[in-house]
Amino acid sequence: MAIVPRLLENPQVTTTVMFPPQQHNHNTKGTTMSFHYLSNTPLEKALDEYINILINNGMKYKTEIIPVIKSSGRITATAVYATFCSPHYNASAMDGIAVLASDTFGASETTPITLTKQQYQHVDTGDPLPDGYDAVIMIEDVINIDTGENGDIKLYEAISPWSHIRQIGEDICAGEMILTSFMKISPSAVGALIAGGVSEVTVIKQPIVGFIPTGDEIVPSKTIPKTGEIPEFNSAIFSAMLSNYGAVPKVYDIVPDNKEKIKNALKSAFKECDIVLLGAGSSAGREDYSVSIIGEVGEVVCHGIAIKPGKPTILGHYKGKPVIGLPGYPVSGIIVLDQILRPILDLFNKTGVRKKKYTEATLSKSIVSSLKYKEFVRVRMGYVQDKLIAAPLGGGSGVVTSFMRADGIIEVPQGVEGYSSGEIINVRLLRPLEELQQSLVVIGSHDPLLDELADILRIKHGDILMRSAHVGSMGGLLAIRNGQAHIAGIHLLDEKTGLYNESFIKKMIPDGNIHLIKCVKRQQGLIVKKGNPNNITGIADLNKDNIRYVNRQKGSGTRILIDYLCKKEGIDTSGIYGYDREEFTHTSVAALIASDSADVGLGIYSAAKLYNLDFLHICDEEYDLLIAGHAYNLPMVQKLLTELNSDEFTKRLNNLGGYCRD
Amino acid sequence: MAIVPRLLENPQVTTTVMFPPQQHNHNTKGTTMSFHYLSNTPLEKALDEYINILINNGMKYKTEIIPVIKSSGRITATAVYATFCSPHYNASAMDGIAVLASDTFGASETTPITLTKQQYQHVDTGDPLPDGYDAVIMIEDVINIDTGENGDIKLYEAISPWSHIRQIGEDICAGEMILTSFMKISPSAVGALIAGGVSEVTVIKQPIVGFIPTGDEIVPSKTIPKTGEIPEFNSAIFSAMLSNYGAVPKVYDIVPDNKEKIKNALKSAFKECDIVLLGAGSSAGREDYSVSIIGEVGEVVCHGIAIKPGKPTILGHYKGKPVIGLPGYPVSGIIVLDQILRPILDLFNKTGVRKKKYTEATLSKSIVSSLKYKEFVRVRMGYVQDKLIAAPLGGGSGVVTSFMRADGIIEVPQGVEGYSSGEIINVRLLRPLEELQQSLVVIGSHDPLLDELADILRIKHGDILMRSAHVGSMGGLLAIRNGQAHIAGIHLLDEKTGLYNESFIKKMIPDGNIHLIKCVKRQQGLIVKKGNPNNITGIADLNKDNIRYVNRQKGSGTRILIDYLCKKEGIDTSGIYGYDREEFTHTSVAALIASDSADVGLGIYSAAKLYNLDFLHICDEEYDLLIAGHAYNLPMVQKLLTELNSDEFTKRLNNLGGYCRD
Repeated sequence: MAIVPRLLENPQVTTTVMFPPQQHNHNTKGTTMSFHYLSNTPLEKALDEYINILINNGMKYKTEIIPVIKSSGRITATAVYATFCSPHYNASAMDGIAVLASDTFGASETTPITLTKQQYQHVDTGDPLPDGYDAVIMIEDVINIDTGENGDIKLYEAISPWSHIRQIGEDICAGEMILTSFMKISPSAVGALIAGGVSEVTVIKQPIVGFIPTGDEIVPSKTIPKTGEIPEFNSAIFSAMLSNYGAVPKVYDIVPDNKEKIKNALKSAFKECDIVLLGAGSSAGREDYSVSIIGEVGEVVCHGIAIKPGKPTILGHYKGKPVIGLPGYPVSGIIVLDQILRPILDLFNKTGVRKKKYTEATLSKSIVSSLKYKEFVRVRMGYVQDKLIAAPLGGGSGVVTSFMRADGIIEVPQGVEGYSSGEIINVRLLRPLEELQQSLVVIGSHDPLLDELADILRIKHGDILMRSAHVGSMGGLLAIRNGQAHIAGIHLLDEKTGLYNESFIKKMIPDGNIHLIKCVKRQQGLIVKKGNPNNITGIADLNKDNIRYVNRQKGSGTRILIDYLCKKEGIDTSGIYGYDREEFTHTSVAALIASDSADVGLGIYSAAKLYNLDFLHICDEEYDLLIAGHAYNLPMVQKLLTELNSDEFTKRLNNLGGYCRD
Repeated sequence: MAIVPRLLENPQVTTTVMFPPQQHNHNTKGTTMSFHYLSNTPLEKALDEYINILINNGMKYKTEIIPVIKSSGRITATAVYATFCSPHYNASAMDGIAVLASDTFGASETTPITLTKQQYQHVDTGDPLPDGYDAVIMIEDVINIDTGENGDIKLYEAISPWSHIRQIGEDICAGEMILTSFMKISPSAVGALIAGGVSEVTVIKQPIVGFIPTGDEIVPSKTIPKTGEIPEFNSAIFSAMLSNYGAVPKVYDIVPDNKEKIKNALKSAFKECDIVLLGAGSSAGREDYSVSIIGEVGEVVCHGIAIKPGKPTILGHYKGKPVIGLPGYPVSGIIVLDQILRPILDLFNKTGVRKKKYTEATLSKSIVSSLKYKEFVRVRMGYVQDKLIAAPLGGGSGVVTSFMRADGIIEVPQGVEGYSSGEIINVRLLRPLEELQQSLVVIGSHDPLLDELADILRIKHGDILMRSAHVGSMGGLLAIRNGQAHIAGIHLLDEKTGLYNESFIKKMIPDGNIHLIKCVKRQQGLIVKKGNPNNITGIADLNKDNIRYVNRQKGSGTRILIDYLCKKEGIDTSGIYGYDREEFTHTSVAALIASDSADVGLGIYSAAKLYNLDFLHICDEEYDLLIAGHAYNLPMVQKLLTELNSDEFTKRLNNLGGYCRD
């Protein structure tokens, strides 16, 4: 057994280590910056100065001692040395016989050497090398040996010393450094540490990050919220993000808009956490609250950062412990965590600031950005003809699905007013590129059947991801023409002929090379409240008094249809209340009617059925799939066409209701 | 409030779903393959047939219902639909006043419109839109309004209906599909689900993978092992790997080499686990054991796969539950988990088989591979002059550090006899490329001071990773000449001049463009046991009877030195017992002496001190750092040079002992 080497000291008990200020050679002094009231500080400047101030005010990371067996994925806080050798004895590496190599010297086919029973010993793999021997001959090579009754054996080949022996320390020597400081412990490193006799290791303690939701209108997500109540789900999003960042999230109870209560919550959070996130309510008034509270408990470093979303962010600290005042809207919070908290956590965790992955893509739609802010635009992405397309997702900072659906983020720098459609831009990836290679880009008119189709494809064909964007039938046609989509759902009525789709395609894509797949006939009609309390009988009733209409966006097939129907019946649409209230899906039209925010809207039967509303059937229209020529033979498109004719899809169509197929 | 749509069904309770056999359209029948006794089945064939047989025998994945709040990172098992709208009421998106848009129509700078107290109402962000109003005017735009005592206000601008209002369903509509089946739930998806009123979600249940270590010689890693005992650390490595693969590891107690006991352990593991790993002991006899046991409990599909390491692997199943017989050596086990278990788990977890990342690199040393096997060669990697270099790591399948140190793996296909130095080969990446860009490649002579230097660099300069390979001084010189390293540690004595390093460099790198940095003077001498029981007084004693010498590998400076010393004293090295016993580091030489596997070896003082051994000082030699011209000005090299002169480094040198610097 090897001696435990003198080098080793017991790892110190849990301790806090100050960041060496050298790590950040900025010119800022140890003092905090002057308090900005709603400044518009550029992101990079704000972050640099903030980190500096935190470090100079003693921001600390902690270490802890944990069993090696639980240490995978953690970061070493000190160099780790082996305390014994592996293997710790000379072991046979084979099944065979142990011999003294010198006894075999000179052996050959012509001059064999005889070994007596005393000169060899049988060993199995892993057996210790018996004393007096220094080599092992493999059992395979012992086959051609004549064994006399006395156990003598003949060798026809010499062997060199230490053959087929795992010598002491072959893997690890006692006293060797197994890992340096600040290394991520991999599964094999866990094995190496145990093999080296290390059972406990000092690692970076994962910082505890507390989140305090505030606001009178905020209610726990479990309860079904009343009107005016906003369910609190930011904590769920942030907790998941924090865990991914290697932090330990700690969510506090919702605090009402009471300055003293928020103040106390903040104070106790500082006692329990390494970093505190203070959730602002959504109102502007609320946020000033947070500023003064943070200012009273600790110090405000910066209020207002030139990013969108995320502008009203507050950066502060209490004795070097970071506190960040987060905007109330989920997407704003996500961006601030990603842009500001993450690099601070990387510093804490000693992982080294993780690089973000960027790639070039073609923009499918122009982006207009404010010169005042660095703007973070969520985009859906996919490969069309080997060209990576980035399609901006709508939705403000309150629309969490816009982030859920995002495959990437375009960071439009401050002072840049945007990018135009078709431009090649740099996109930060939120998913691995491989995943995007499997995505089927469907842009065009909305129908719930697309989601069902996506689900069937996912179930039957695993790796296909259908990414659909609802931009209306005309938008779909354009996307196909511009090579920005594989497939478009369209239902465009030609007023003159009364026929669907063909004429529009001929006009927009004269040179053809597209496939029009008949998909379904679906019922279009007026969606009205259950029991039709407003006694709506048809289009003619839409401009009656006290009738609140809800419309679809321009360019959508349904909008074109309602325009046509009104024209036909000679109705002045300017007289229809809410005609300019535009929604992007049939579902949202139905949702507004179901919740009595509108009385009537044109839409498909399945949407009415979904919300258990009444439906006045007006016409059957053809909802078809337009497939780009270059995409038609792609395996994923062919699979989609197969599923289009599957019983499963028919079953789901019947479930949705209002569809028929010939 | 929106109605809960009819589409929704309660997610089914925990259930098992059979994989659709269509997923694998191979020609294999449902029957199992014929039992192979130690076959040499190619990896891809073995895996394909295995997966097929598992599926056809009913391999199942399970689903479970969990709270959405805990679902981040999990995979949906069904499509998930929203149960209510978000927002669920029309909410003011701003602080301002709610108005009826039509009241404002026609307002302009020249023709302002007056609204009475009854015509508007103050609202904060998030407040419900009061009845009878359909738009919100931002407080900012209300600034320029004359307020009469009666509360009348003047408007100079019209507003269109639904401005600055977050309408019902703006984010999510009840009944909308939020996620399809088999989607990874991201943090923002967690938020979207909660916002959509979903509190529980049906996800894929993470498979439980049991590991049964076996072997009489295997002991729990906590105990300090006696000679002949092998500490069990495979379970720690495998558990960590399994968690990373999204499985739940379950480690069983070590089972001795008793067929019945192993059989029973296997049976109960099948009861508790979805997949079972049976750890073979290390001996060949042991493994046949496993085959027959697996054959008796379930069915053996394949025994012996054409991979190295990992050949003796056993693939089997019990009613479609996979059981894999693993080789005893850690690296073999790691390769088998990675190559065979991982794709099966991907199938289980419905993640879609994860693609491995490959990159091209220049091989720094020839690889000889057996034609019989697909061989997995561990390599260290780093960028030298923007060229990615892959340096094969030595060590057999028992050397877990060879995997811990690996940055990549070269998969030498079956039937290929290897690659030659300088060849561009495809390497599978085990670390992100960014990390490799930060690595400082140090190849050459071994000295513990390099590890200490690496640790200091890591602590002071965060992201620098020093990757050193011990190939001896000559190897280091070659690496620098061939542009395969940034730095080499060398100590080469010129017999004629008695001077170090210069003459060798002149000979090997005549065209210069290198920097030789004087590093340390270190004491070389004979390392002997404590108290020098063999009374060794100098080189002359090495060829005495019963003296067991341990040497360093050819090409190492220390080997060159001992050769020179023996020659000088006229000693025939063939008379020195163990002169051809070659170790690669000073530490391992000392370790062998400390553990009485050898009596004496030439090495440096620090190694003797580490093991508390006696040391006969023979000479002081110059251990210098040779830096390639192209590398000299790299920031990481300059940082290393700075740290070379730091007090911290001096402190650590004194701690190691036997060094002096001028």
